Amino acid sequence: MVSKGGEWHGVMPYLVSPIDERGRVKRAVLTDLVEHLIGQGVHGLTPLGSTGEFAYLNRHQKAEIIATVVEAARGRVPVIAGIAATTTGEAVAMAKEAEELGADGILAVLEAYFPIAEDGVADYFEAVAAATPLPVCIYTNPNFQRSDVSIPVLKRLVRSSPTIRYIKDASTNTGRLLSIMTATEGRMKVFAASAHIPVCVMLIGGLGWMAGPACIVAPQSVELYELCRAGKWEEAMEKQRPLWAINQIFAKYGLAACIKGALELQGFDVGPPLAPQAPLDEAGRREVRAALEIVGAI
Amino acid sequence: MVSKGGEWHGVMPYLVSPIDERGRVKRAVLTDLVEHLIGQGVHGLTPLGSTGEFAYLNRHQKAEIIATVVEAARGRVPVIAGIAATTTGEAVAMAKEAEELGADGILAVLEAYFPIAEDGVADYFEAVAAATPLPVCIYTNPNFQRSDVSIPVLKRLVRSSPTIRYIKDASTNTGRLLSIMTATEGRMKVFAASAHIPVCVMLIGGLGWMAGPACIVAPQSVELYELCRAGKWEEAMEKQRPLWAINQIFAKYGLAACIKGALELQGFDVGPPLAPQAPLDEAGRREVRAALEIVGAI
Amino acid sequence: MVSKGGEWHGVMPYLVSPIDERGRVKRAVLTDLVEHLIGQGVHGLTPLGSTGEFAYLNRHQKAEIIATVVEAARGRVPVIAGIAATTTGEAVAMAKEAEELGADGILAVLEAYFPIAEDGVADYFEAVAAATPLPVCIYTNPNFQRSDVSIPVLKRLVRSSPTIRYIKDASTNTGRLLSIMTATEGRMKVFAASAHIPVCVMLIGGLGWMAGPACIVAPQSVELYELCRAGKWEEAMEKQRPLWAINQIFAKYGLAACIKGALELQGFDVGPPLAPQAPLDEAGRREVRAALEIVGAI
Amino acid sequence: MVSKGGEWHGVMPYLVSPIDERGRVKRAVLTDLVEHLIGQGVHGLTPLGSTGEFAYLNRHQKAEIIATVVEAARGRVPVIAGIAATTTGEAVAMAKEAEELGADGILAVLEAYFPIAEDGVADYFEAVAAATPLPVCIYTNPNFQRSDVSIPVLKRLVRSSPTIRYIKDASTNTGRLLSIMTATEGRMKVFAASAHIPVCVMLIGGLGWMAGPACIVAPQSVELYELCRAGKWEEAMEKQRPLWAINQIFAKYGLAACIKGALELQGFDVGPPLAPQAPLDEAGRREVRAALEIVGAI
Repeated sequence: MVSKGGEWHGVMPYLVSPIDERGRVKRAVLTDLVEHLIGQGVHGLTPLGSTGEFAYLNRHQKAEIIATVVEAARGRVPVIAGIAATTTGEAVAMAKEAEELGADGILAVLEAYFPIAEDGVADYFEAVAAATPLPVCIYTNPNFQRSDVSIPVLKRLVRSSPTIRYIKDASTNTGRLLSIMTATEGRMKVFAASAHIPVCVMLIGGLGWMAGPACIVAPQSVELYELCRAGKWEEAMEKQRPLWAINQIFAKYGLAACIKGALELQGFDVGPPLAPQAPLDEAGRREVRAALEIVGAI
Repeated sequence: MVSKGGEWHGVMPYLVSPIDERGRVKRAVLTDLVEHLIGQGVHGLTPLGSTGEFAYLNRHQKAEIIATVVEAARGRVPVIAGIAATTTGEAVAMAKEAEELGADGILAVLEAYFPIAEDGVADYFEAVAAATPLPVCIYTNPNFQRSDVSIPVLKRLVRSSPTIRYIKDASTNTGRLLSIMTATEGRMKVFAASAHIPVCVMLIGGLGWMAGPACIVAPQSVELYELCRAGKWEEAMEKQRPLWAINQIFAKYGLAACIKGALELQGFDVGPPLAPQAPLDEAGRREVRAALEIVGAI
Repeated sequence: MVSKGGEWHGVMPYLVSPIDERGRVKRAVLTDLVEHLIGQGVHGLTPLGSTGEFAYLNRHQKAEIIATVVEAARGRVPVIAGIAATTTGEAVAMAKEAEELGADGILAVLEAYFPIAEDGVADYFEAVAAATPLPVCIYTNPNFQRSDVSIPVLKRLVRSSPTIRYIKDASTNTGRLLSIMTATEGRMKVFAASAHIPVCVMLIGGLGWMAGPACIVAPQSVELYELCRAGKWEEAMEKQRPLWAINQIFAKYGLAACIKGALELQGFDVGPPLAPQAPLDEAGRREVRAALEIVGAI
Repeated sequence: MVSKGGEWHGVMPYLVSPIDERGRVKRAVLTDLVEHLIGQGVHGLTPLGSTGEFAYLNRHQKAEIIATVVEAARGRVPVIAGIAATTTGEAVAMAKEAEELGADGILAVLEAYFPIAEDGVADYFEAVAAATPLPVCIYTNPNFQRSDVSIPVLKRLVRSSPTIRYIKDASTNTGRLLSIMTATEGRMKVFAASAHIPVCVMLIGGLGWMAGPACIVAPQSVELYELCRAGKWEEAMEKQRPLWAINQIFAKYGLAACIKGALELQGFDVGPPLAPQAPLDEAGRREVRAALEIVGAI
């Protein structure tokens, strides 16, 4: 049993967002997925990350997804709800809404169109943190987002906002994670993303990982996490190798399309990504199936 | 008097979006600006472009801005309403809404988070075109948007969708405009953006320009356009030089912040850009004022 | 007859560098090409630009190419020799050598591996200018070079170094050329590259163009230049359209490979680009031939 | 004692290139540095990497540096000589020369100006490998080099060229290293660069690291390596933290300038980087000194 009030840690799948052809959230499918993942031992759930297609959903859909996940989780593991906006006003409103819907924490993204100065970036996250008492995890993904959060801004944030305690960075630059830990004197706790090798991030002091692939290799991920926690680094590394191959396939085919395609193969009727994104094609399905078979996930 | 049904041409300012501290559209200010610009002789109006902060507004605010501009224009010049979305569904809904609100045309943007394949890009614009009988102008801005529209896609679109007739490209690559004209055999008509030198785009066969700076140097822009139309290229070039200096300042300070700041200097109470964007600072105001004085725009 | 001592202007082909399989300069071929181009009316010659594969040749090969071109030109048109280095010392030595070999001017490139601060960039070009009394043209190509020259650096250079009088910019951003003219109050004269539409650069005040494609469409280029000089802008534009299509093909297939391939089609035995660059393949040859036929260049 | 014939492993400093004001190699200084590093227990030496300013030196200087290092090393540790060229011909000549000068292996870089197709990239490295019987390490640094080596090309190379057995990748993307190991079924052995956390690369199966900072923290690096080899991962991680801070400073100030500046602080008269690169300034020197003091390296 994971303490919701304690420090977040472990395997926290980035949930997909199952949407039907008319734009309605498929609540039953999402509920099944949540039940399945908790049964597999995951330590938390993060709806509305990149894999959750936050950039493709409207406010109403997002609220319904948070509500569904909170309800399905029934307090067994923390639910960290993604919020992403270009304006401070919209971000604050979404953070308050997530709290009202019962989320246990906020995963905060700054979207941008025009470049934003460092002060504006810090102001945005401070306003989100001030909007609710929930713990906040900053999420940076320089491959897809048009803003990044510099280390000086992170140093400012850990001092100004005691609830900003976590960062999930999807940059592929693992050294940046260690630099963040050092620069914030450990006050900014770090989660890996699917762009980092989890066992490396655990070794340097990370708390776990938030990642789409954990939806489809949950028990394998939990086992890897436990080996790391037990300090069995070389045994963990042997489990890591085939799991990393899975992360690489997803980088190749596009995150939402691939995780949704893989979940379909595993029997979850989550549907395709939202158009004009393309669903996983036949070649992709074959490659995903083969990778899942290697790790015993299908 | 501009014929609304004919081919678009000339100076079409990208309107700013005046929003008050509580997020409400400042309708009176926007109405005044529209009246002023039509009085200066502009040939059309484009609300909800980049300068119009489309990426920072919600659906309700956008609808109100379109309605306000349509009402204020009273059919004197065409109103080309910007729509921008990451999903086809949202884009189609916004295009229909713009038509219902009385817009004369659609300025269509594809936003993206994950990369989109060429087919998906074309599908998106074809769906927008099919949603209404209004003429469509594609808007590409590779500096700020996470998708671009390739020349092969444009060739497909002019064949598949007769209402897709215009492109406004903000790439800084003027040669790309000439390549588009050639590749589409002239069926894709071209408007310049503030990143191109208007007199050059006119010389190569462009119809005019859609740009934020035209809000603040409208009569000078109209005069430049008329000289180009009359084939007085060298005289046009002499007018062009100081106007180009204005475009360069706006590239330096950020479009929305600068055009809003300049309009404030000219007496329009449009307010600052939406947070966390920073308003024009004192040094910026001085530089903008100096540039406007040189061309007699203040 | 072009005065060598006067201001450079007009069509200045970027010459290819014909090298045989054993690495020797094919002097006879290069001499023939020079004679041919002067006969077609070009206004100058620029060996060792991008098209001239400066980045693929050693010091000995470069010296032999400059010597060959100077000798073949026999003072009929100015020869502007490319020099490119990562160190100030090497650049200075190459500039002196070019002068000794009889070049009429220097085309100066700063190569880089690590990023260089603005002051270092300016120091480099000042040292080149101080090394010889020859006029200097700065050459910037942000697509291929790892350094760029900012407008503040150009402003410093026109003040500090009276012989730095020209810039050839290959950025595709035509507006940048106009900004350079304004910022340097006209003291930095501008040449276009194949990435710009020549007629546009002439209209904004450019002196001409330095470009690889001028090797293979020399008379057409000279005719275009003369129309621009005569102020016949619309007539020039009609000549410009098919010539632009040629520039676009070269962007597609790679400059050195394409110009060398096209010259082979025209009967000059210049050979392939240096390995591991690939020569023009069969499809490329067909496309180049078709484009040349349209403008009557084959 | 390291077996020169066996598999390379361990800490292999990227040596700086001490050059005096007249462009001459400071042989005595370089000899002292080699003696010092071997005394500290390093496992190999790599002259003419990025830190060695290969991009700033001419052929004669490079040959003299290789000769000096080989002579100073006296066979105690392997000397892996960097070669870098844009043409296959130059690379082959340099590889042969390195062999003649007594190098034990080749560190091969492909420089580029125009983009190179995958086949050309593979051809280049195959030609280098065929030129000598020495083992070859491919070096990729996407931050500074204009070409990269894709995983499919690496798969081709390990099959076609048995002497291409190592890769040193400076991409910051640690996951890429694991992907390379998997894709080549372990036949391509991996060295870290200063952009990766060494302890992470060791955990995933790397052989060691080739990096500029190892010049100035050699005993600390060797100690870290030994802890990794002994499987004492958490102890290694504690040594890693302050050493990583040093790598970060060097990313901030520029590799050659910083390593040379730090070596000057440690008493080696290596001089500044070659102009127009700037030497470490006073603030940089203070920051470097402080970081060295923390790890006891000054």
